[in-house]
Amino acid sequence: MVNETQHTCSASSSSKSDGGSSSGSESSKDSSRCSTPVLDADRHERLREKMRRRQDSGDRWFSLEFFPPRTANAAVNLISRFDRMGAGGPLFIDVTWHPAGDPGSDKETSSMIIANTAVNYCGLETILHMTCCNQTKDDITGHLQKAKRLGLKNIMALRGDPVGEEWEEEVDGFNYAVDLVKHIRNEFDDYFDICVAGYPKGHPEAESYEADLRHLKEKVFAGADFIITQLFFRSETFLKFMKDCQAIGITCPVIPGIFPIQGYHSLRQLVKLSKLEVPQEIKDVIEPIKDNDAAIRNYGVELAVSMCRELLDSGVVHGLHFYTLNREVATTEVLKRLGMWKEDPRRPLPWAVSAHPKRRVEDVRPIFWASRPKSYIYRTQEWDDFPNGRWGNSSSPAFGELKDYYLFYLKSKSPREELLKMWGEELTGEESVFEVFTCYITGEPNKNGHKVTCMPWNDDPLATETNLLKEQLEKVNRRGILTINSQPNINGKPSTDPIVGWGPSGGYVFQKAYLEFFTSSEIVTALLKVLKKYELRVNYHIVNVKGQNITNAPDLQPNAVTWGIFPGREIIQPTVVDPVSFLSWKDEAFALWIEQWAKLYEEESPSRMIIQYIHDNYYLVNLVDNDFPLENCLWQVVDDTFELLNSPTQQ
Amino acid sequence: MVNETQHTCSASSSSKSDGGSSSGSESSKDSSRCSTPVLDADRHERLREKMRRRQDSGDRWFSLEFFPPRTANAAVNLISRFDRMGAGGPLFIDVTWHPAGDPGSDKETSSMIIANTAVNYCGLETILHMTCCNQTKDDITGHLQKAKRLGLKNIMALRGDPVGEEWEEEVDGFNYAVDLVKHIRNEFDDYFDICVAGYPKGHPEAESYEADLRHLKEKVFAGADFIITQLFFRSETFLKFMKDCQAIGITCPVIPGIFPIQGYHSLRQLVKLSKLEVPQEIKDVIEPIKDNDAAIRNYGVELAVSMCRELLDSGVVHGLHFYTLNREVATTEVLKRLGMWKEDPRRPLPWAVSAHPKRRVEDVRPIFWASRPKSYIYRTQEWDDFPNGRWGNSSSPAFGELKDYYLFYLKSKSPREELLKMWGEELTGEESVFEVFTCYITGEPNKNGHKVTCMPWNDDPLATETNLLKEQLEKVNRRGILTINSQPNINGKPSTDPIVGWGPSGGYVFQKAYLEFFTSSEIVTALLKVLKKYELRVNYHIVNVKGQNITNAPDLQPNAVTWGIFPGREIIQPTVVDPVSFLSWKDEAFALWIEQWAKLYEEESPSRMIIQYIHDNYYLVNLVDNDFPLENCLWQVVDDTFELLNSPTQQ
Repeated sequence: MVNETQHTCSASSSSKSDGGSSSGSESSKDSSRCSTPVLDADRHERLREKMRRRQDSGDRWFSLEFFPPRTANAAVNLISRFDRMGAGGPLFIDVTWHPAGDPGSDKETSSMIIANTAVNYCGLETILHMTCCNQTKDDITGHLQKAKRLGLKNIMALRGDPVGEEWEEEVDGFNYAVDLVKHIRNEFDDYFDICVAGYPKGHPEAESYEADLRHLKEKVFAGADFIITQLFFRSETFLKFMKDCQAIGITCPVIPGIFPIQGYHSLRQLVKLSKLEVPQEIKDVIEPIKDNDAAIRNYGVELAVSMCRELLDSGVVHGLHFYTLNREVATTEVLKRLGMWKEDPRRPLPWAVSAHPKRRVEDVRPIFWASRPKSYIYRTQEWDDFPNGRWGNSSSPAFGELKDYYLFYLKSKSPREELLKMWGEELTGEESVFEVFTCYITGEPNKNGHKVTCMPWNDDPLATETNLLKEQLEKVNRRGILTINSQPNINGKPSTDPIVGWGPSGGYVFQKAYLEFFTSSEIVTALLKVLKKYELRVNYHIVNVKGQNITNAPDLQPNAVTWGIFPGREIIQPTVVDPVSFLSWKDEAFALWIEQWAKLYEEESPSRMIIQYIHDNYYLVNLVDNDFPLENCLWQVVDDTFELLNSPTQQ
Repeated sequence: MVNETQHTCSASSSSKSDGGSSSGSESSKDSSRCSTPVLDADRHERLREKMRRRQDSGDRWFSLEFFPPRTANAAVNLISRFDRMGAGGPLFIDVTWHPAGDPGSDKETSSMIIANTAVNYCGLETILHMTCCNQTKDDITGHLQKAKRLGLKNIMALRGDPVGEEWEEEVDGFNYAVDLVKHIRNEFDDYFDICVAGYPKGHPEAESYEADLRHLKEKVFAGADFIITQLFFRSETFLKFMKDCQAIGITCPVIPGIFPIQGYHSLRQLVKLSKLEVPQEIKDVIEPIKDNDAAIRNYGVELAVSMCRELLDSGVVHGLHFYTLNREVATTEVLKRLGMWKEDPRRPLPWAVSAHPKRRVEDVRPIFWASRPKSYIYRTQEWDDFPNGRWGNSSSPAFGELKDYYLFYLKSKSPREELLKMWGEELTGEESVFEVFTCYITGEPNKNGHKVTCMPWNDDPLATETNLLKEQLEKVNRRGILTINSQPNINGKPSTDPIVGWGPSGGYVFQKAYLEFFTSSEIVTALLKVLKKYELRVNYHIVNVKGQNITNAPDLQPNAVTWGIFPGREIIQPTVVDPVSFLSWKDEAFALWIEQWAKLYEEESPSRMIIQYIHDNYYLVNLVDNDFPLENCLWQVVDDTFELLNSPTQQ
């Protein structure tokens, strides 16, 4: 979910009372209209423009620095952290570059891939660090090309630490960050926004503080757009530095790097690396409590909050950059105490928007991946353009195949033992599966006392919206209608509704009721008889793992099931039930039975065979009630189906 | 308005219960989805397919033949006739080719341009006749290329009458219709549907009836898709002919040409031209009443109805082709009595759809041209593609300039004297103009006793929908809010609603309230103060003839003001208020004051100067109330404006 600190829809709707600049029919020729209704102007701006706009408006912002994880499991956790910390509304995050960790590779843990995930899957504006020392021009160009290809738009240009003690300048080589800045501008023109590092105390290797300031000026004049500083311990340090920057003609934004002290050891290590000195007054507090992590963190938060307040109160600081060390608590706490952590429940669209520039216009998706947006993004990453306005306009309808690689993004956050506790150490029949689904819906513990907080099709607990349907869902899951996706009908609720609202304020949102479930062929047979009665009202798609497909969708056309009407804009229809992509989703939905559930059990074990049986024999069904102004009839459809099944004459 | 005899939306929504033909993920790769929700499948079919589908379903249809008019005035009348007769639901119309009348030229009266108008401006499936005798290959290819460029898709391939008495075959020339059929297929492959003529009595110049049948077979085997016959007077003549066709292997549709006798002289002339003989029993009836036009026409209608009934009852005839002689009454009467005239009030979209193949996907237009659709089509004819799904997607936003040529399509059907009676022989001030607008709204006669049935911005009486707003409109026009376009808000009425409904049944249609008017700068000043109170609710655009433009539209984005939600389909938003095209419309709307109204009066006359003053000084205003579920606030906005104007403190 993209939650910038300030939504700009209202800001940009100011009157254009130019009194004469539009000179008649001329203006229709070079129209400035854009190809999509722009629910969030931020999505279309460069980072440096976002920064400038906030500076102009006086809105405060923050950003978060992370380093790449060491293991694939740690990567899964970091991505969850991106989602959680992204909710607070950072202007951007940045990912550091670890030359020793193969940072430009395709490994799940590389700087490049982590930044890619942040942009594309988590929808975060992202800066990728890049160092140039001891690297060839070709290597660097290759990294930059790859970053561009992945949709990264911002580079933090650094020298990096030289390898070996006796470092010497290479002639025509990349010796300083300024060489990298120049290279980026030469080879990629204005494509990237470039950030460089500033040293409030001077770079430890610089001849002098003044000489270092001159180097910084060179970097800016070579094309850097803004500066993030090394950490410091006193606000005066930064404020003096900023004054000195301005004095020698550096006019771009200078963003203070904030390091909330989170523990004794991490502080020592960082100080060693950065060759900074910790002020005596801080040492005096920390040394006595060095074994009490909580106490140090509390002190660190206090210290950071008061320093940040001084910076913000100075009037010259608009944004704060946090060195998170990949941890959540301290930074979040500082931001909350500063009133800068803004969990904005408003959503530009009902689903999380990707920050990839190619996907900027995207505003329609099939409903099927509602609980698996990262999988959807992965499977459509090769598309040349993305549907906007209408799903049918997509010119690249082919979905990427189910491949091992993307199962990385499918991985559950929970380990196998935990999944077994939730989904059953041993299944005794299809009914034990029904029970798992039912417990997931109700939130009640299963018979072994464990709550079911995730399912193969949904890594998170039930959405608030689904809660609206809880009672009905419980009833049908108990009887073998194994629901994996649903939404209630909505007939014009305000776009600001805390549960179902999305988009700019002043609008109205609508939904058609939707229900998607696995169920047995016996139930499907009865369901099809019942659906005849609802032919004009309910659209259905029923498919099994082999692709046998029954539908009443006219001409394979998509059915819009979520849409919004907003002041002064075209209509947005962000989710559709698309008959064609349903068959791609079907492959994934059935595969999850095996990949995530059956494989928890031994081969040939009864539990595994039960899941395999369901996989082989059940149908995946989706139902849409087109009459959104009336009471949802889908529950009646299900009731009628069971009534038919239970009526003795029909059996 | 496109009103085919059968709407196919429901027909095409049959279940696809194939139980296995969609084999999983394969089907997502070569998707058969189309790029638009296809409200009317007919729009996407070739004529021969439409014919075949009706034959399969047993639905009866009719078609209408017209000849090109001699004068520009007659052309205006013929186009009105196309609109009126198009409402009865012909499967197609055809336009004959008059070699002597420069049929392929750009003249308003040429066969080519009349057929172009029928397709593009009236939305009628159209066949253009073309003769080949005495023409060069290059000429013919040129005509065909032009027809294709204009969006014509069907050709009636004819030999035409040779010039001079002693006609001789040219070697390698176009001697027979079959040569033209072959040429079309050679040069244009399968692009055109080709129709050829059949002679139930044999072609007068053929060696024999049998020889003529063989020629017909040659034409069909050369690539003709169907046959329309010469007129005949007895159903047996046709039924025998059809049997004979089948006997020698002609399997394509054979459509009987019906000639309702409309008068003594036209019958004699036609008989002479076609070298047919009128049966004695018809002569016996007609001769005694030859000076009584009404009696002959009544007899002609009777005769045609009974012959058509016999043809239809035979079971082998599904469609009837009428030689209208450009007259309406007799053919319409025959069709009504046969129950084949189907004025279907259902509209696929709220505006008349063009039948040009390039415009097939078009389903969004700016609301401004609502009363001037032909002008809109003309001014956008150079576009390469047309907005669908979203207005913002239009890649060719430039509107054609106001040129003399298209004023042809703007011409009023009423002559100058009639317009002067309606709009005032002599204007005494702005108030006399207010009165004209008011009388147009109320339908009451003006002070000279004449009803105002059209206005420069609207060639037809008030739309039924506008009637919903009549009382309010009257009130504001009296006070100088000179309305030219408006619609009420609608919050989910059934798509089958007789007044505001459109699109397939089972859907819901919505509108935002819209009001567009000219008014004085004094009123605009007050209005702008009032609009501040409605800033979040009402979007406005206010512009004068010089292009001074005041708006609160966010980022020049279009505002959807009409949309529909349908079962199993994406959302359709057929009208938008687009800030950019408003400035093109503005030029036209202001020009109409001068071109259509001021120029009725002498130069320098007071009446002309009053209109000129309004043209030079008034503003064109449009208002949208975004809160469509609430009561329309635009009347309140106008009331507040007058209250402000009348309050002594504000004056």
